[in-house]
Amino acid sequence: MTSLAPAALALETDVAVVGAGPVGLFAVFELGLLGLSAHVVDALPRVGGQPVELYADKPIYDIPGVQVFSGQELADALMRQIAPFHPQLHLGQRVDGLERQPDGRFLLTTHKGIRLLAKAVFIAGGAGAFEPRRLKIEGLNALEDKHLFHSAPPPQALAGQRVVIVGGEDAALEEAIELATRAEARAAGVTLLYRRDGFQAEPATVERFRALCADGSLDFVVGQVQAFDAPDGRLTMLHVLGTDGQSRPLPADMLLVLQGFSPRMGPIVNWHLDMERKQLVVDTEKFQTSESGIFAVGDINTYPGKRKLILCGFHEATLAAFAVAEQLTGAPIPLQYTTSSTLLHKRLGLASS
Amino acid sequence: MTSLAPAALALETDVAVVGAGPVGLFAVFELGLLGLSAHVVDALPRVGGQPVELYADKPIYDIPGVQVFSGQELADALMRQIAPFHPQLHLGQRVDGLERQPDGRFLLTTHKGIRLLAKAVFIAGGAGAFEPRRLKIEGLNALEDKHLFHSAPPPQALAGQRVVIVGGEDAALEEAIELATRAEARAAGVTLLYRRDGFQAEPATVERFRALCADGSLDFVVGQVQAFDAPDGRLTMLHVLGTDGQSRPLPADMLLVLQGFSPRMGPIVNWHLDMERKQLVVDTEKFQTSESGIFAVGDINTYPGKRKLILCGFHEATLAAFAVAEQLTGAPIPLQYTTSSTLLHKRLGLASS
Repeated sequence: MTSLAPAALALETDVAVVGAGPVGLFAVFELGLLGLSAHVVDALPRVGGQPVELYADKPIYDIPGVQVFSGQELADALMRQIAPFHPQLHLGQRVDGLERQPDGRFLLTTHKGIRLLAKAVFIAGGAGAFEPRRLKIEGLNALEDKHLFHSAPPPQALAGQRVVIVGGEDAALEEAIELATRAEARAAGVTLLYRRDGFQAEPATVERFRALCADGSLDFVVGQVQAFDAPDGRLTMLHVLGTDGQSRPLPADMLLVLQGFSPRMGPIVNWHLDMERKQLVVDTEKFQTSESGIFAVGDINTYPGKRKLILCGFHEATLAAFAVAEQLTGAPIPLQYTTSSTLLHKRLGLASS
Repeated sequence: MTSLAPAALALETDVAVVGAGPVGLFAVFELGLLGLSAHVVDALPRVGGQPVELYADKPIYDIPGVQVFSGQELADALMRQIAPFHPQLHLGQRVDGLERQPDGRFLLTTHKGIRLLAKAVFIAGGAGAFEPRRLKIEGLNALEDKHLFHSAPPPQALAGQRVVIVGGEDAALEEAIELATRAEARAAGVTLLYRRDGFQAEPATVERFRALCADGSLDFVVGQVQAFDAPDGRLTMLHVLGTDGQSRPLPADMLLVLQGFSPRMGPIVNWHLDMERKQLVVDTEKFQTSESGIFAVGDINTYPGKRKLILCGFHEATLAAFAVAEQLTGAPIPLQYTTSSTLLHKRLGLASS
């Protein structure tokens, strides 16, 4: 038996679209008109994205040419519109790998084992894809940027404070180590809080963390935040539920929640694409990110003037589709109209007129 | 009686939209959501623009979320969508003046006497608004850029050629004078052809033209081109219908048709806005032209990546509307969603939920 190269087992397509919301679905349509194939991956078990999740039966009034659409009606209409292009949908599949191959293509893998080899990637991940994972505790977010942080705050902000860090991956452990060992602006105390006694982190990092706990530079508590005290908006105490079912107080002035990002965009974070305020920075000609071949359309991107509106995402997906078509053919793509082009009619599966 | 300032007699509005095609109509919607009023002017007697003129009953397949729309259905749908904002339509009205007022607003006048005072202008004029007026003679356009020009060609192209210029306004007369008097790359002969013996041009220009005709430097023929000879694609002869109903041959190697532009955008040409290949150059943040307060949306504009698609015009009109709203209020306008915003529901005339 010969061992197959990973690429040999993958599905091949022109474009892998990450996100089956309205903008990802419409991208399939514009790519199809240009003769390009697409596979669509979404972590959610159904198409339609945020409008279906949040507004399935609520009215949307600003889809141009449609007085009112529910989120579900919009998704259904787009599915009918893209049907001629036989979109390949992979739902309930979280992207857990995205690697450039030696031939320049991208190998996208999902947590359920789908492998897509694509010449370009459209990230149509919707808003919030790069949101940090938060603790779901009522009222806690009101402390944000004062006593609650989701990324490392400036050192001075922690000087003399009792700091609690929540998380069990590299980012949380590294921050704990950093705070425990820094020479200046030292915290009054540093506690790592995690739901179990075991970490998903580099062994060397875990070893260093354990050593600092052993010498008293750090505290480690197993449990989960259940409630907090913040008289006059100033955090003083966390109430931590232990594995024994008991709640115990844990004094805290500063809470750092470093649990990583929403899993939807996981591996894309590793590409270190240019970002601004958690959005992917794109140009307005191609809607390409800082990495050639990776495009971002819809609420996940940002550019001057950006408005997070579905109708804007339709435009972005269209220009990105033309850009990919020109990159793949190496030639300008003339505009054709769906009303009059026999080529587009053929691609749409219409009887020739 | 005191004499009223012109502005006092005008209709006042936030935005004057020039063009009642799909993009101009949707601009009214987005402006309305932002609390801004609009008046719409179009030279055509009906709304819907090019899709209605060209595709009234033909299918359009690429309006996002709508599998198929005829041009008329699209116009009707947009009219229903913008109805809550009571759009003020001025149809069959050609813009014949656009002047900045001392207070910074624009006074837009039409050939039927409508006067609009607006804080901003959206040019949604569609494609071809800056097209030169052409002679409607079958097969003639095949000679374009070789033996037929709609603007002055490079001097060398006319050296030794029998040149016929068609037109009766300043541009045509000035070019005739230029060719007749230039020192180098002289034409073998220059004839101005116009349908009547009378010009719409500066008196001094007409006087100079007449003098050059009198001394034999120029010829002037009254009549209209009816047909042409171009054996092997090379222009040799025009056939000119005289006012006496007779057709006469007029030898010609080069035909310059300088009849001005399509009347739709007449006075806007005088603003000398930045243009590229007959399109108005805009930025992609505000879709503003080179003149503050004058925006261009839809097929009439250009920017890197531009595609002349209705769905792109919807995006452009939306960002332009936000830009105007921010310019008028001097503050950032937060995004609200039509699904959830009670303010937008109120503006849409919906019962509060």
